[in-house]
Amino acid sequence: MGKIGKKFIKETKYENLEEKSDQEKGEKMPELQLDYDKNLEMIELPEFNDDIIKESSFTKIVNQRKSVREYSDEKISLRELSYLLWNTQGIKDEGKKWSFRTVPSAGARHSFETYLLINNVKKLKNGLYRYLPFDNKLVFLNGDKNFAQDMEKACFGQKMITQSAVTFIWAAHPYRMTWRYQQRGYRYLFMDAGHVCQNLYLSAESIGCGTCAIGAYDDDKVNGLIGLDGEKLFVIYMGTVGKKKE
Amino acid sequence: MGKIGKKFIKETKYENLEEKSDQEKGEKMPELQLDYDKNLEMIELPEFNDDIIKESSFTKIVNQRKSVREYSDEKISLRELSYLLWNTQGIKDEGKKWSFRTVPSAGARHSFETYLLINNVKKLKNGLYRYLPFDNKLVFLNGDKNFAQDMEKACFGQKMITQSAVTFIWAAHPYRMTWRYQQRGYRYLFMDAGHVCQNLYLSAESIGCGTCAIGAYDDDKVNGLIGLDGEKLFVIYMGTVGKKKE
Repeated sequence: MGKIGKKFIKETKYENLEEKSDQEKGEKMPELQLDYDKNLEMIELPEFNDDIIKESSFTKIVNQRKSVREYSDEKISLRELSYLLWNTQGIKDEGKKWSFRTVPSAGARHSFETYLLINNVKKLKNGLYRYLPFDNKLVFLNGDKNFAQDMEKACFGQKMITQSAVTFIWAAHPYRMTWRYQQRGYRYLFMDAGHVCQNLYLSAESIGCGTCAIGAYDDDKVNGLIGLDGEKLFVIYMGTVGKKKE
Repeated sequence: MGKIGKKFIKETKYENLEEKSDQEKGEKMPELQLDYDKNLEMIELPEFNDDIIKESSFTKIVNQRKSVREYSDEKISLRELSYLLWNTQGIKDEGKKWSFRTVPSAGARHSFETYLLINNVKKLKNGLYRYLPFDNKLVFLNGDKNFAQDMEKACFGQKMITQSAVTFIWAAHPYRMTWRYQQRGYRYLFMDAGHVCQNLYLSAESIGCGTCAIGAYDDDKVNGLIGLDGEKLFVIYMGTVGKKKE
């Protein structure tokens, strides 16, 4: 396999990019949110307010944050889930060609789709959902009974997948980024995944939840379970969240 | 150049890694903090307390965060700089083979060295420094008068470099990560850079400062200016910080 990392760094230097990006060539901008089947079940996300906040101090949150791999059996509420989604991908402002969110993204490209594996959330049946940030809704995708166990296996048996209340699964849509930044955009995808996951850690901490980021998984199996092709759309990062044990 | 991004994703799948990592082969663990010349000038970082906090509410900080490219002329204090360094790479706990910090890192590898380009910080002469998180000190590296302008040029003229109070420059030491995770570790380096930069955004916001992340730069020039070889140690991400304009 050689040294793909070194090669990736080298070939994504500006001097090694093509003269013009697809954007500069006048290619059509890819959609800012992938389409979805309008016949699927939709769930409106509720508003939330400060009632759900257990710790409001930024400095305390940063200092007590750590990766939490065991959770209590307590369900998280739909308002809490709505808050976590807001903090990780919520849209503060939008134009025809961009959105400003609660996290930064290179060129405001925001090249992710957020999938959720729901295990223990009030008012939601268990299964796989997608978050639609422009609609502030969830769409229900898959209620297969074995789905969580299969995902856990695809993540090499990391038990947080089945023991957490929810697993955030961020899928990258690379062309949304490379349309402007060419192959260097792949660097930015991973950085953006870091921005998002850090906000998940901090916002979860603020509502008495713990988080564990997951970067180790069988890409093909995880992508296959969610129904992604692994190239035009692939899982880039995950994070489990659940109420902390007392 | 072809499609290096796609190739990188493919070759960093677990199935394409070698059977054993260097760690599993018994290779020596790389140092958790690079060595430095003990003859260089050292600066102790002061303690900080809540006096410097302008906004303590996590939810307000997340919601008002945005990229800020213009700054006031007001200097930031050494205590404020110390706070920003704490929030981005500060060590909360450590063992012989790991450290727990204010940000997560894959396997607690924390494969960065933090360089600072100081432009407008009280008690510090301008120039290039390195942060030593295990010592909570800065080491002064380069006071060349043209350094900031040269860096700005190497960042394609992004004026935040010379107009900010400080530019955080994160350099990745890939072997600290790949020793355990092989080539897949390159994914984690970029994610970790995202974690760190998000904490820079939020902590800067909490003290009345604005931040702008920088991912667009001439790698060879930036690495050359700082004195990094570009392979064993290379700049992975940057962020400028300065007091907000009224």
